[in-house]
Amino acid sequence: MTEPRYLTDAEKLAVATAEAKKGLAEGGIPIGAALFDEEGRLLGSGHNQRVQGGNPALHGETAAFLNAGRQRSYRRTTMATTLSPCWYCSGLVRQFNIGRVIVGENENFFGGQDWLAENGTEVTTVNDPELIRIMTDFIAANPELWNEDIGED
Amino acid sequence: MTEPRYLTDAEKLAVATAEAKKGLAEGGIPIGAALFDEEGRLLGSGHNQRVQGGNPALHGETAAFLNAGRQRSYRRTTMATTLSPCWYCSGLVRQFNIGRVIVGENENFFGGQDWLAENGTEVTTVNDPELIRIMTDFIAANPELWNEDIGED
Repeated sequence: MTEPRYLTDAEKLAVATAEAKKGLAEGGIPIGAALFDEEGRLLGSGHNQRVQGGNPALHGETAAFLNAGRQRSYRRTTMATTLSPCWYCSGLVRQFNIGRVIVGENENFFGGQDWLAENGTEVTTVNDPELIRIMTDFIAANPELWNEDIGED
Repeated sequence: MTEPRYLTDAEKLAVATAEAKKGLAEGGIPIGAALFDEEGRLLGSGHNQRVQGGNPALHGETAAFLNAGRQRSYRRTTMATTLSPCWYCSGLVRQFNIGRVIVGENENFFGGQDWLAENGTEVTTVNDPELIRIMTDFIAANPELWNEDIGED
């Protein structure tokens, strides 16, 4: 038996970041996420599919949740996401009692993370400079697409 | 030019109910939803896909939202759902500013509908006896599956 492999926060966020970059390379909205079990094993990861999949329901977090498949409990899982979760994704976290969220950055968008913290989710914000830059550049270049993704008229 | 066809609330809810019954017939969780534009045209409908699709991310409301495809604005849309929307689906409604929600019943489950109403969504509750019965029977027969679907340990 080897010791369980606990990934660090930085390593978990790196999985989400790789998803965001994959999305950007595909011409999509560069937001990624990944869900881990309590021992730091990856359950599933994914990225926003609005452009590539024509799929408005797959944000980074919901894509990771989908790709993790059916789970009996999420209480000890951790969701790493490159951007502060919007209400839709915050609702996902709250309903399924995902225990912890690592937020890559919340400077370009501040979602429901305080609401989650108030309701018992452990929230850690990193504000990684590279993630801030990726999203700042993307929003500046694609304001309409970004507004569509967050439901702004 | 004919007059726009405004569906009544009962007609909108009937579309969601048909989805719930389709889900039940498939062996799935009987929750359905449908999204309509301001003139009452159906944009998309769907039902819970946890069992059939092995898909934990598709609740009734998110399935309807997905099947409606990309939309530029949801402010004048109406979501009819057979069951009070959980936090995940309430978050969807709030983030995308879906203007109105018709709740088929909230006796078996009371989700985030008050939170939505407080934040500007028009919420109408029907408490349809047939929908209450369908969900009561389903939960009684499938308690573990139901708890999995709402993230209860």
